[in-house]
Amino acid sequence: MLDICLLGTGGMLPLPNRWLTSLMTRFQGSNLLIDCGEGTQIAIKEKGWSFKSIDTICFTHYHADHISGLPGLLLSMGNSGRTEPVLLIGPIGLIETVTALRTIAPELPFCIEYLELTQPQQTIARFGYHLSAFRVNHNIACYGYTIEIPRAGKFQIEKALKLNLPKQYWGRLQRGETIEIDGNNITPDAVLGESRKGIKLTYCTDTRPVPAIIEAAKSSDLLICEGMYGELDQQEKANKYKHMTFHEAAHLAKQAEVTKMWLTHYSPSLTNPEKFIDDIRDIFPNVEAGEDGKSTLLTFEE
Amino acid sequence: MLDICLLGTGGMLPLPNRWLTSLMTRFQGSNLLIDCGEGTQIAIKEKGWSFKSIDTICFTHYHADHISGLPGLLLSMGNSGRTEPVLLIGPIGLIETVTALRTIAPELPFCIEYLELTQPQQTIARFGYHLSAFRVNHNIACYGYTIEIPRAGKFQIEKALKLNLPKQYWGRLQRGETIEIDGNNITPDAVLGESRKGIKLTYCTDTRPVPAIIEAAKSSDLLICEGMYGELDQQEKANKYKHMTFHEAAHLAKQAEVTKMWLTHYSPSLTNPEKFIDDIRDIFPNVEAGEDGKSTLLTFEE
Repeated sequence: MLDICLLGTGGMLPLPNRWLTSLMTRFQGSNLLIDCGEGTQIAIKEKGWSFKSIDTICFTHYHADHISGLPGLLLSMGNSGRTEPVLLIGPIGLIETVTALRTIAPELPFCIEYLELTQPQQTIARFGYHLSAFRVNHNIACYGYTIEIPRAGKFQIEKALKLNLPKQYWGRLQRGETIEIDGNNITPDAVLGESRKGIKLTYCTDTRPVPAIIEAAKSSDLLICEGMYGELDQQEKANKYKHMTFHEAAHLAKQAEVTKMWLTHYSPSLTNPEKFIDDIRDIFPNVEAGEDGKSTLLTFEE
Repeated sequence: MLDICLLGTGGMLPLPNRWLTSLMTRFQGSNLLIDCGEGTQIAIKEKGWSFKSIDTICFTHYHADHISGLPGLLLSMGNSGRTEPVLLIGPIGLIETVTALRTIAPELPFCIEYLELTQPQQTIARFGYHLSAFRVNHNIACYGYTIEIPRAGKFQIEKALKLNLPKQYWGRLQRGETIEIDGNNITPDAVLGESRKGIKLTYCTDTRPVPAIIEAAKSSDLLICEGMYGELDQQEKANKYKHMTFHEAAHLAKQAEVTKMWLTHYSPSLTNPEKFIDDIRDIFPNVEAGEDGKSTLLTFEE
């Protein structure tokens, strides 16, 4: 189960009624944050989720609205009692940018580890899930992210019985462990069926629509995607500032064959995103306007 | 008339219902800000005051809760169309700290000027008022600020008549201008009475109670003062972290003989500051608990 909260939905400016776009996820006690603009720590507090469990912070890019809240968040994580390391991930420039911002947050009770993204696509294993970064097309280096929770195949009792496997080992094999019996290694695939559909979440903001997004988001259960402009006549602006309209996001969702899409990262001038949602349902029906604090739980299919 | 808004009242952490402590003043179209923590720009927006007119930003010190909102504010000031220079004032380290934070706000359509405070007490003239910084006692270099608007003496009609001054010059002399008639300079003091009581505002947070505050705040119309802890049993914490209790602030206000005091910069654990106000009215009666957005207009006495 992947617990998801879209903490904010604003682009450019934090507004009195709209936090800057940021996503937080929880999976088996491990909390991940994507982007941290001014006020994100307040949005986390409003949601009631834990600072202390944040072990991974990803940055799409280093425009202020995506990272300005980092020094305050790091201090609050320290005040919450965190002592375990925190991994920061982002485009090249991560160490330099974070070091500069830490001028006002120099003392922390935990280590910071850095992963600077250098490739168009990079995947790492975190606490039970796979985190992938994929390069998108903004006016500075920018990445989107996917979180994938793999799901093993069904346990095949008949195979276990055939191997004369004592029942005490069944659970461990099902959880993916290799066990040793009488000097022989038994791997999970010996008793599991074909791996099943897992959970997939894709997040991307601050980009033009590019094929890399379709590829990365393919068959996601949820795509959280930038919709900077609702009005069709803002297309020129979207092109110029390397953002997207609702229509463009809808076409991406359709092509990526995702189950559902939430829009976010609205222009400050887009006061009522809901108003433009119906216009794009013809392109991609299962779309919702993201709003601050919008949450869901992605679960394995029955 | 000095227009005053206490934008936030929180110390350490921005909270869902409490912005970080910051003060904004307006005088004849010139806006001044003291401190700019995470979220201050949102509090300004809530108040409805202009980013564009901010020409002076003072910092008490560089703990994150007092400066973390600067990059976002500078960008918003740029977006609001400001092109005139902005003066930043603060303890030594100002240029280094702001330069580091501007890693995420590198391009601005206005110049930034810096005044690093090196003396225990420094005064500069701004747009019609005097701005003084005075060093206080925190665990890093920290300053309080006073704003004083001087008031000229009353226009003495009998003196003007005696000098045979044409009426067309009276207004200019009253506004403090020197005029020239037939090659002779006439200075305002030739027609004005003794200068009268002006307007004085003092602001100080993040300090132990020290004589410099009493001296600087002397006879202020309003003292906005830190009250980190309401409970008397927090005295040890106040000593240790170099903050103040409500009681200590009340004694300062009494000794400085100010007209009124607002408390601010509450500890996140102090959820209801109002509760402790009555306890200190015996020491200094005209005290109020500051709250986000609390505003007033200081005017010349009749």
